[in-house]
Amino acid sequence: MENFTYHNPTRIHFGRGQIAQVGREIPTEARVLLVAGGGSIKTNGVYDQVRKTLGSKSVLEFFGVEANPDYDTLMKAVGICRKERVDWLLAVGGGSVLDGTKFIAAAVPFQGEPWDILAKNAPLKSALPIGAVLTLPATGSEANGGAVISRRSIQEKLAFINPLVFPRFSVLDPETTFSLPERQIANGVGDAFTHVLEQYLTFPAAAAVQDRFAESILKALIEEGPKSVANPQDYDARANVVWAATWALNTAIGVGVPQDWATHMIGHELTALHQIDHARTLAIVMPSLMQVQRATKREKLLQYAGKVWHITQGSEEARIDEAIGRTRAFFEKLGLKTRLRDYNVSPETASVVAQRLKARGFLPLGEREDITAEVVEKILRLAA
Amino acid sequence: MENFTYHNPTRIHFGRGQIAQVGREIPTEARVLLVAGGGSIKTNGVYDQVRKTLGSKSVLEFFGVEANPDYDTLMKAVGICRKERVDWLLAVGGGSVLDGTKFIAAAVPFQGEPWDILAKNAPLKSALPIGAVLTLPATGSEANGGAVISRRSIQEKLAFINPLVFPRFSVLDPETTFSLPERQIANGVGDAFTHVLEQYLTFPAAAAVQDRFAESILKALIEEGPKSVANPQDYDARANVVWAATWALNTAIGVGVPQDWATHMIGHELTALHQIDHARTLAIVMPSLMQVQRATKREKLLQYAGKVWHITQGSEEARIDEAIGRTRAFFEKLGLKTRLRDYNVSPETASVVAQRLKARGFLPLGEREDITAEVVEKILRLAA
Repeated sequence: MENFTYHNPTRIHFGRGQIAQVGREIPTEARVLLVAGGGSIKTNGVYDQVRKTLGSKSVLEFFGVEANPDYDTLMKAVGICRKERVDWLLAVGGGSVLDGTKFIAAAVPFQGEPWDILAKNAPLKSALPIGAVLTLPATGSEANGGAVISRRSIQEKLAFINPLVFPRFSVLDPETTFSLPERQIANGVGDAFTHVLEQYLTFPAAAAVQDRFAESILKALIEEGPKSVANPQDYDARANVVWAATWALNTAIGVGVPQDWATHMIGHELTALHQIDHARTLAIVMPSLMQVQRATKREKLLQYAGKVWHITQGSEEARIDEAIGRTRAFFEKLGLKTRLRDYNVSPETASVVAQRLKARGFLPLGEREDITAEVVEKILRLAA
Repeated sequence: MENFTYHNPTRIHFGRGQIAQVGREIPTEARVLLVAGGGSIKTNGVYDQVRKTLGSKSVLEFFGVEANPDYDTLMKAVGICRKERVDWLLAVGGGSVLDGTKFIAAAVPFQGEPWDILAKNAPLKSALPIGAVLTLPATGSEANGGAVISRRSIQEKLAFINPLVFPRFSVLDPETTFSLPERQIANGVGDAFTHVLEQYLTFPAAAAVQDRFAESILKALIEEGPKSVANPQDYDARANVVWAATWALNTAIGVGVPQDWATHMIGHELTALHQIDHARTLAIVMPSLMQVQRATKREKLLQYAGKVWHITQGSEEARIDEAIGRTRAFFEKLGLKTRLRDYNVSPETASVVAQRLKARGFLPLGEREDITAEVVEKILRLAA
């Protein structure tokens, strides 16, 4: 096992009615900015619950954070915070609202050009405290210090990670997700599943607890995910999906082990070029990446086949084939198509994506840094 | 799944050489009390590493915290802290030193009789900050807010739990445990294993992540525990045992599910009456408790048989029998004898323990509160 530091300070309030904790978590004298997306929280009752628990606290509102939150949108909120001396942020929404709020929290007290937080990984001295009410399980942003921000005006999408932007608290009430479209829950399950694989499907590092935990989350998503998509009002199935998605990316399974993240990097380009949902890009890339990288990921692929899919018969090659096939079938069962042609994207995108990643200095990728432009192209051609 | 709040703020520095983090974690101007046990840290190099990283900081030392830390011993440290205006505590040792330090941290600023923290569950307004260097994997005290304190002068042993006494940071360097006697590592594995069972072997609560994580820790301890006892210098095996023991009681697997803890309560009495090591009392009680409670724990026993021991053949009764047998065999393999007669304790202790628990108002025990004095006696008679 490699050395590591593990620290996850976010307090999670989980379950029915837990939005009532928000009022207790945010100090009475706080000047709060409530950050939200397009307004669905006003139709599903979440907004009313939040305003009720906030009571007579001083609260401004900022609606309009879009999917793949945009720098220019967020800078408007930064301006409001500075002008109105806001000192607490409350994110109410899914991963995009959470990520956007983290950027606002970092940018408000930042001395200098806030874009440098993303573009130059500029160090932070402080950040506004953040609370969150999560309404869409997927990204794990409710309990980590990472955020991905887009800047459409210059076609950029960049991430930053900083311990200062871990939410102080997050409320996870599975019932608030009952009214989500089936497509979004399916995407969330696929996204969380891939988060685990990025931290697990590398090479062995003698990390028994992290490996067993990763397999645990995968198994929970395999058993509860399709059930939750099919029966959106099934509280227990949804609760398990929500909690599994948090653990998929709250850093616990990634400490002391190698990580990959090539599937995400390639997938981001497919979203940028072809507007495919993030989770669906992962469903396209992951099975092909497993196939192309089967030699270097061999030991972990065999472990994955045995521990997650209970595949014990056949030659090693046959077991790996079956594990890849099961992975593809799982995405398809969720409704996430796994071929570029399913999205009317031609195989020619393979070289475009490879060159884009290369031009921006992101290559090589992978836990062994062996995913070059050539390998990226091979992965995507196999996904045609 | 039941509603819950999950919060574990302890920062863990894990791995070789991580004691060097202590000096960075404790503020330069702090007035530190280093709390330790009998002095083994002076022979295994830990003390030297700690003093080196503390550098020129203001540090007092308090050695002599015994196994099952004693109230009267700890109150001497409280007196030193108050007199010398100590404002940081550094625990260097195993679970007893950690637990004792938590009590000191709570007692120093406490207005009133410190015994009330234990005897009356008196609320705390503050506690001194705690850092820890863990030298014995077992109790999980390095990443939770609980402590068990004895008071020999009045034959009491009581616990308190408070979020204020979570360590701010804990250093877990597996190499610092290499010189421990085999008996202590075996005890640690058995203790951690039982911590998991107390939170898992109850009744189903539709908690997929918690259940799979609990099974993960059990499997890690089954695979790595005996290996680590047999080969104390095997870094990876020991690292896995250390990390598994932390997760066994850092509250993650216990949220949203019922908990038992009857084995610990009965075990504490066997320690008090017969001076049997804590972990060994658990090895005596657990297999018998499983047997006596097999009807009310039926579903979880079958799940445990299948998921942890891979027992899939035979009738349900036969599978439960085999799971109980495997549990007993695991303890015995570690060197933890599982019968009262192995410790020269007569079966007559059964009624004495039952009456002691009853007299102190601790009954009924168990996740269904159905472990009465009669059931306690039955469990211990079966363990004869």
